[in-house]
Amino acid sequence: MNQDMVVMKFGGSSVETIEKMQRVAERIIKKTETFEKVVVVVSAMGKTTNQLLELAKQAAKYPSKREIDMLISTGEQVSISLLTMILNEKNKHAIALTGFQAGIKTGGLHTKNKILDIDTSKIEGFLNERKIVVVAGFQGYNENGDITTLGRGGSDTTAVAIAAKLQCQAEIYTDVDGIYGVDPRLYKEAKKIDVISYEEMKEMAFLGAKVMEPRSIEIGHRYHIPIYVASAHNDEIGTYIKEYKKVEEKTITGLSISEKVMMVTIVNFPAYAKDIAALFIKLAENEINVDMINQTPTGEGLINLAFTASADDLEAINEVLEDIAKRYQEIDVIKNMNVVKVSVVGTGMRTQSGVAAELFKLLADHHIEFNLVTTSEISISYTMDKKHKQKAVEVISHHFGL
Amino acid sequence: MNQDMVVMKFGGSSVETIEKMQRVAERIIKKTETFEKVVVVVSAMGKTTNQLLELAKQAAKYPSKREIDMLISTGEQVSISLLTMILNEKNKHAIALTGFQAGIKTGGLHTKNKILDIDTSKIEGFLNERKIVVVAGFQGYNENGDITTLGRGGSDTTAVAIAAKLQCQAEIYTDVDGIYGVDPRLYKEAKKIDVISYEEMKEMAFLGAKVMEPRSIEIGHRYHIPIYVASAHNDEIGTYIKEYKKVEEKTITGLSISEKVMMVTIVNFPAYAKDIAALFIKLAENEINVDMINQTPTGEGLINLAFTASADDLEAINEVLEDIAKRYQEIDVIKNMNVVKVSVVGTGMRTQSGVAAELFKLLADHHIEFNLVTTSEISISYTMDKKHKQKAVEVISHHFGL
Repeated sequence: MNQDMVVMKFGGSSVETIEKMQRVAERIIKKTETFEKVVVVVSAMGKTTNQLLELAKQAAKYPSKREIDMLISTGEQVSISLLTMILNEKNKHAIALTGFQAGIKTGGLHTKNKILDIDTSKIEGFLNERKIVVVAGFQGYNENGDITTLGRGGSDTTAVAIAAKLQCQAEIYTDVDGIYGVDPRLYKEAKKIDVISYEEMKEMAFLGAKVMEPRSIEIGHRYHIPIYVASAHNDEIGTYIKEYKKVEEKTITGLSISEKVMMVTIVNFPAYAKDIAALFIKLAENEINVDMINQTPTGEGLINLAFTASADDLEAINEVLEDIAKRYQEIDVIKNMNVVKVSVVGTGMRTQSGVAAELFKLLADHHIEFNLVTTSEISISYTMDKKHKQKAVEVISHHFGL
Repeated sequence: MNQDMVVMKFGGSSVETIEKMQRVAERIIKKTETFEKVVVVVSAMGKTTNQLLELAKQAAKYPSKREIDMLISTGEQVSISLLTMILNEKNKHAIALTGFQAGIKTGGLHTKNKILDIDTSKIEGFLNERKIVVVAGFQGYNENGDITTLGRGGSDTTAVAIAAKLQCQAEIYTDVDGIYGVDPRLYKEAKKIDVISYEEMKEMAFLGAKVMEPRSIEIGHRYHIPIYVASAHNDEIGTYIKEYKKVEEKTITGLSISEKVMMVTIVNFPAYAKDIAALFIKLAENEINVDMINQTPTGEGLINLAFTASADDLEAINEVLEDIAKRYQEIDVIKNMNVVKVSVVGTGMRTQSGVAAELFKLLADHHIEFNLVTTSEISISYTMDKKHKQKAVEVISHHFGL
């Protein structure tokens, strides 16, 4: 680990205006007092990316994705240029690098690229000249020399990937001041977590906590570099995501809520593997990510099949269901948009049995009914009616001291 | 000359909105009916470049020029992306290339770069696949891999330089529908020129006609490729700029007016070469381009020294003059902002003597007084009071049938 080096990342809302950029510049300059070499990764200013996508929509019904990448990548190019001008004006030598110039090689589909490798020679060269290197987040280039973008959470991924290659700490400055065991807007007494393991953080992100995308945590995990999440607006101490073995492990570290969930129940579906497989293949072909699945026998050769998916996929799901309803005349289809998914996460579950039982009892004691349950090694998720959400959050958070 | 290939260029006002881009796309598609291979060069949408420069000014008093280039180059990146989406949506395969991707190598100072060479292999590859290649005007990259821009008229330069390398015609689509002997806003009966030689066009551009920058005409001249200037808004026939020998040469081809002129007269300056040289060196050091110079002896060892310069340089000129006034206590300095420069251009002058005399007489007959006169091989320029401008334009245009 290089202790004299750091990668700082600032999101779109932190560089929304020139005024806010000035404040970000001050924070960066302060950082140079304790770190000799500073890399800064920035997103596009405020809502720029959405505005550019809006223009693309006006230009074409199905805009070519290569050109979408070329278009939206201008957002970060603008913000790195301006931030660098500000730093230079404050007599801190800084240099702006696009994704291409920073050597960020990507592969995959346009608008959804993944970082394959980073040639950090240019970044390191400027760091050795003691320049603050300001890198455009969210973008890179592919083997054809096309400009590419990284999709959701792309700037976090850029920052953590650069830190991984440079073997130094990544600091993510954001609108929240750290990671909480449970969303403070839902539970007033929510406690900030000082340190959380990569695994727990990944699980929480997958389950709906929106502070960071799981991709960047995965990279941090693989390259063993600590990620520090803190407020872009104040100096409060944030949360470290890193390799972490607790002496006395807490059973549950966090609780996360996913609101954009829908539940589909197919009543009296045939209980044959080939029919069930055909249904899920069809859902997959239509790019619908099925999350939780439950099947219950209802009679001779028949089952009730329930699954959850993202409410964003409603249209695609409707299409598949119409098709299914034509094929199987005897079934009934029930869609429920009125559900939330409540998940609890904790590496402690692995070693302590009975967490599920403890949770079941807790919910039952408080008359909170749930529909589907899934468990992973370090998490348990329940879908329940929206009306139970607040009560479930409070009961669980209180019980486990989140 | 490749007859199956063409480079079309559209300026900022032609791609100001998505709607206008749709019309540009139609014109491009129509062009593919007669040319197999079409390259399109576009500027930034409308006033984008100025808006970005405004942001830079807010960010820093002296924004770093490398980052100004990076910032303003996003303007063309946006317009090529959108135009390409529109072409693709209309089922014409198109591909957008930034200056870097198009292989446009530049050298010089940031914000004022010159094209050194173009590696057209990528452009040609896509043309061979029968793709419309949409290239960002105004930008390139330097030996460090930095993004660069070409300064005023940069997109014209990009278009003509690509045409020069591909050895095909360049077509510049603009707000005017061709080159006129005299500005139609000043002389209602102005005639459009069908064909004009590179030399005449260059001279007119240098002397203030704003249709095209002299740089791009120079490139067309050097590589012997015809440049066609026509309206972006209608199908009227425009003007060809090319190698052109007229059978019966017209004496005067065009008249151009330069309004941003100031005249400085220094009364009783010492008539010694070293003092005069020192003055002009000082002006040059302050990046003031002196245009016309006149000196008249006034007495023993004294002269009146008059020169013109761009009114944009007023501030720098004032500084130099203050310094001069301190050094030479006996002089008087008169600044006149109320002048225009009227220039007549024609390769015919070279072979016909007496054009200057004819013009002097014409102006005298109409009581039009002038201050300074300069002549080149194919032009004569006069500075005169602004009040004489309209009359001079009409008299000269009428006399020479412009």
